[in-house]
Amino acid sequence: MDLQSLSTPALILDKGIVERNTARMSARMTKHGVGLRPHLKTAKSARVAELATAGHSGGITVSTLAEADYFGENGFDDITYAVCIVPGKLSQAAALIAGGTDLKILVDSIDTAKFIAAYDHDIRFKVLIEIDCGDARTGLLPEAPELIDIGTILNDAQNCDLQGVLTHGGHSYLATSIDGIKQAAKEERTAVLRAAERLIAAGFPCPVVSAGSTPTAMHGESYDGITEMRPGVFVFFDLDQLARNACTREDLALSVLASVIGHNKHIGHITIDAGALALSKDISATANWPHVGYGSLCDPETMAPLENLHVAKVSQEHGVIPVTDDTAYDRLPIGSMVRVLPNHACITAAGYPCYNVVEGTQVVDQWDRVNGW
Amino acid sequence: MDLQSLSTPALILDKGIVERNTARMSARMTKHGVGLRPHLKTAKSARVAELATAGHSGGITVSTLAEADYFGENGFDDITYAVCIVPGKLSQAAALIAGGTDLKILVDSIDTAKFIAAYDHDIRFKVLIEIDCGDARTGLLPEAPELIDIGTILNDAQNCDLQGVLTHGGHSYLATSIDGIKQAAKEERTAVLRAAERLIAAGFPCPVVSAGSTPTAMHGESYDGITEMRPGVFVFFDLDQLARNACTREDLALSVLASVIGHNKHIGHITIDAGALALSKDISATANWPHVGYGSLCDPETMAPLENLHVAKVSQEHGVIPVTDDTAYDRLPIGSMVRVLPNHACITAAGYPCYNVVEGTQVVDQWDRVNGW
Repeated sequence: MDLQSLSTPALILDKGIVERNTARMSARMTKHGVGLRPHLKTAKSARVAELATAGHSGGITVSTLAEADYFGENGFDDITYAVCIVPGKLSQAAALIAGGTDLKILVDSIDTAKFIAAYDHDIRFKVLIEIDCGDARTGLLPEAPELIDIGTILNDAQNCDLQGVLTHGGHSYLATSIDGIKQAAKEERTAVLRAAERLIAAGFPCPVVSAGSTPTAMHGESYDGITEMRPGVFVFFDLDQLARNACTREDLALSVLASVIGHNKHIGHITIDAGALALSKDISATANWPHVGYGSLCDPETMAPLENLHVAKVSQEHGVIPVTDDTAYDRLPIGSMVRVLPNHACITAAGYPCYNVVEGTQVVDQWDRVNGW
Repeated sequence: MDLQSLSTPALILDKGIVERNTARMSARMTKHGVGLRPHLKTAKSARVAELATAGHSGGITVSTLAEADYFGENGFDDITYAVCIVPGKLSQAAALIAGGTDLKILVDSIDTAKFIAAYDHDIRFKVLIEIDCGDARTGLLPEAPELIDIGTILNDAQNCDLQGVLTHGGHSYLATSIDGIKQAAKEERTAVLRAAERLIAAGFPCPVVSAGSTPTAMHGESYDGITEMRPGVFVFFDLDQLARNACTREDLALSVLASVIGHNKHIGHITIDAGALALSKDISATANWPHVGYGSLCDPETMAPLENLHVAKVSQEHGVIPVTDDTAYDRLPIGSMVRVLPNHACITAAGYPCYNVVEGTQVVDQWDRVNGW
């Protein structure tokens, strides 16, 4: 089927690009001698997971237990749930483990560690301790006394296997240059290795030393001592990654197909049928590129940039494209289509139940996604 | 079931509040002698549609053809699709009409009007012309020459019933006072009446004079000449409406239930398991209330505000709540729950497949939603 036969808005995934992006990351991690446990929070798709895990152990990372459930059903049994678990979700985790999933859970607090240790002793929980390497979101500082306290609780518990430490160099997203990303990657590695060293020095096991973000996995200089990296958005990339030079334009695999619904010449804009729900309200790339707005426009077939055209405003189902040169109305007649490059692939994709997978201008497949919790 | 037995994040709808909000709007429109055709783009729920249409004709407004399909299947046959149609969607619209839905479609361009007029003559399309009353998004200015051109095309077409004019006073969302909303309501009415007057003067039928937004429906002083109003977010309201005084805090029907997953004391914040996907990245209320962030926190049972606590940052599955007073850690232990009031109900709700409907702290029902396109 031709791309332009799709009803709009529609989520489009370029098969060749996602294959290239995943193969490159796999090769890069192999070259550096570090395992790849891709974070599937971006793609939430078993078909993408097959590509992203090729050449490595098959282990994956997820951000929700709904993802763990879906990927388990799709044959991915080795899963790290990389958000600190709360007591209320332990029963769901236990059900997944009882069902055969090799699930690793995450903690960064004594309270949660105690709760796990006191939980049903018929289930064995594999547990990682989260480390804050500079991201300043969650996790313990590598020198925090609680690291050893939690290690002790988990190591002493009859129902826990202490697996090691996990960190996320999310502060690499704040870097605006490759050098800045390299520095974040160094901090990520230093922090997680120091935490592992402290656990081992205290006599605890630490087989897993897990790190990663797409920028640090793409540009880090050394992964020595790290057992696995967990990049996510590298499968698709997006304008936010491009704006910080973490990828090239040719690496952008995801776009939204939209139709031109109006020429509002008295205002000076074109409207398309991709608004806040089709694109999301994420404008992260505008921190570096103010004129990207809610997404930049491309020719629907060649993906050539439609210069100076971007989605400047959104309402629920409308995207508004300012027109500074009236020839834009001729280039984009009502009913014609465009493709919009989103700011943040993870957030935009979450508005859709599936990917329309294209090779060139032909839709060759539909790949499902798991949304929600 | 008790509210706190739900897995988080979860979308919570207070039944008593949505009943009160819908009854009030119904009574207000009846008192003003104007029809109510609620815009279901906010709720996307047949159960909410039943409440919102009570006391009026049963006609509804939708923003996607997926909504039209869903509501048609749920017994709502009189539907206005209030986004200008593109040629590529006419076959979907025709299928709905052939299936028995009394669908009204919208145009604001000569090109689309011609396309409809040239379409399959076995289907009759009921068509409205969109007017720009100051919203500056879509529609023709009331004095635009194209209004009569489009009227002529549709009136001459063998497959069209020209139904009249439709406008959306969306610029009322920019008002920061009730007086400002009243002014927008006056502009909305003046513009759509003028367009209707011109169509009638040209000898065309104009049985429908449709207007509306929640602020203008709540605070307009006269609807004389308008046949129907199409407010949407009034069913739930949200922080964005509250911040512009379009409702009171007691009118906020929608919230997100979340769990505390971390006390990150070395950074000075609490994390919850409601991030960008659970809350959306909409921060519209911050234009008036900078300290609302991605949502403000409430006690999960009483809905009393947790003073000074709001979601300042989000990543995909994390919400970050800055702590300025250390007693917050005691008030919100790890594993405890909060409810987050969202900025924009329409966008936040779109992340969920259903509402958990509560009376007080008891979950009494689950109402489905239709998402996507």
